[in-house]
Amino acid sequence: MRVLVIGATGTIGRAVSQALAGEHEVLRASRSGPLRVDLADTATLDALFEEAGPLDAVVCCAASGPLAPLLDLAAFPDTAFTTALHGKLLGQIALTRRAAAHLPDAGSVTLTSGTFPAPLPDGSLGALVNSGLEGFVANAAHELPRGVRLNAVSPGWVEETLRGLGDETTAGTPVAEVAQAYVDAVEGVMTGRVLRV
Amino acid sequence: MRVLVIGATGTIGRAVSQALAGEHEVLRASRSGPLRVDLADTATLDALFEEAGPLDAVVCCAASGPLAPLLDLAAFPDTAFTTALHGKLLGQIALTRRAAAHLPDAGSVTLTSGTFPAPLPDGSLGALVNSGLEGFVANAAHELPRGVRLNAVSPGWVEETLRGLGDETTAGTPVAEVAQAYVDAVEGVMTGRVLRV
Repeated sequence: MRVLVIGATGTIGRAVSQALAGEHEVLRASRSGPLRVDLADTATLDALFEEAGPLDAVVCCAASGPLAPLLDLAAFPDTAFTTALHGKLLGQIALTRRAAAHLPDAGSVTLTSGTFPAPLPDGSLGALVNSGLEGFVANAAHELPRGVRLNAVSPGWVEETLRGLGDETTAGTPVAEVAQAYVDAVEGVMTGRVLRV
Repeated sequence: MRVLVIGATGTIGRAVSQALAGEHEVLRASRSGPLRVDLADTATLDALFEEAGPLDAVVCCAASGPLAPLLDLAAFPDTAFTTALHGKLLGQIALTRRAAAHLPDAGSVTLTSGTFPAPLPDGSLGALVNSGLEGFVANAAHELPRGVRLNAVSPGWVEETLRGLGDETTAGTPVAEVAQAYVDAVEGVMTGRVLRV
C-alpha cells in the first residue's frame, strides 16, 4: 500500500513510519517536511493531497495540545480555548473529510486520540479533544463512502516520551507497541474503533 | 436554592424550571428572555451573571446543534464546523468557567449533552459535541474549586419533542423524566457524572 503518515517526525510518527516501511510505501509529512503540512491550516491539507498523489491509507500521528488552566480566564481566555481546538481536533476532522474524497474503495484513515489514566490538572481541554475525536470517529466511520474505514489509536503515556522528559519512574507503553496499533488499523478490516494502547 | 436555568424556554428547559420551582427560586434565561443570554456570545454570559446576582446552582438546557453533511465541503465548509461548536460545546464550557468563579462553596453546574441511540447520518458533528462535552465534564469536575460540582444530563429522544415533530411512532423519554435528572444533579452530591435518560 501507499501510506501517507502525517506527523512523521514525532516520537510516535517515526515509529509508525518505520513499522509500516517494511511492507508498504510510506510518504512522510510534517510541519517541517519532507512533505509539508500544518493541521491547523486546512489549505496545507489540500496542497498535501495534491502533492501526495494516489494513496491507499492516511495515518495522522500529529496530536499535540496545550494544557489549559480552566479557571484562569485572563491567562487562557475563551478564544485561546477555541484556537487550541484547531490542531488536534478540527485539523484531524478536516483531514478525514479530505481523505474520504481522495482515498480509493476500502482505503483507510487512522487518527490519534489519547488517554489520560485519571483526571489531569489543566487537562479538561485535552479531555474534551480526545473524547470529542472518539465520538466523531464512532459516528463518522458510518458516513464514509465506498468502504473507506476510519479508526483512532488512543495512546496513554509513551515510554520513550517520558524518558525524553527525564522521567525514569512512570510506567509507559513502548513506542513500538503503540506503532503496532496503527499498523493493525491500516492493515486490518475494522472501522469506527478506538484502539487503546 | 437560587437556581439559574439557561435555555428556559425550550421543551426541556420549561420542564426543568417547573420541576425546580416547587422547592427553589428559579431565574429563567434564554435568547428571548426574561434574562437574556446567547451561549454563542460569551459577553452575554458575563452580563447574565452580573444581572442574576447570587446563585446556588446553574443549569444549562440550551443545547441545539446542526446536522452536518460530513463529505460536502462546499455546503458545509471547515469554518461552518468551527462555528457550530460555539453554541452547545464552547458556550457551555465558557458558562462553566464563569459559574465556577461566581458560585459559592458546594454550588453546582449542570450541563446538557445528548445521546444518539446509533450512528446518525450527518451526525458526526453532534457526536463530537456530545462526547467532547462529556470528556470535559469528567475532567473539569476535578478542577473546580471549593466543592463546586459539575455534571451533565444526556437525554436521548424526548417524547414531547418527537410528538411536536409529528412523529407518533418513535419511542422517547417523557420530558418530566428528563427534567428529574436535572433536579437530581442540582439537589444531589454527585460530581463529574453524566446522567443518561
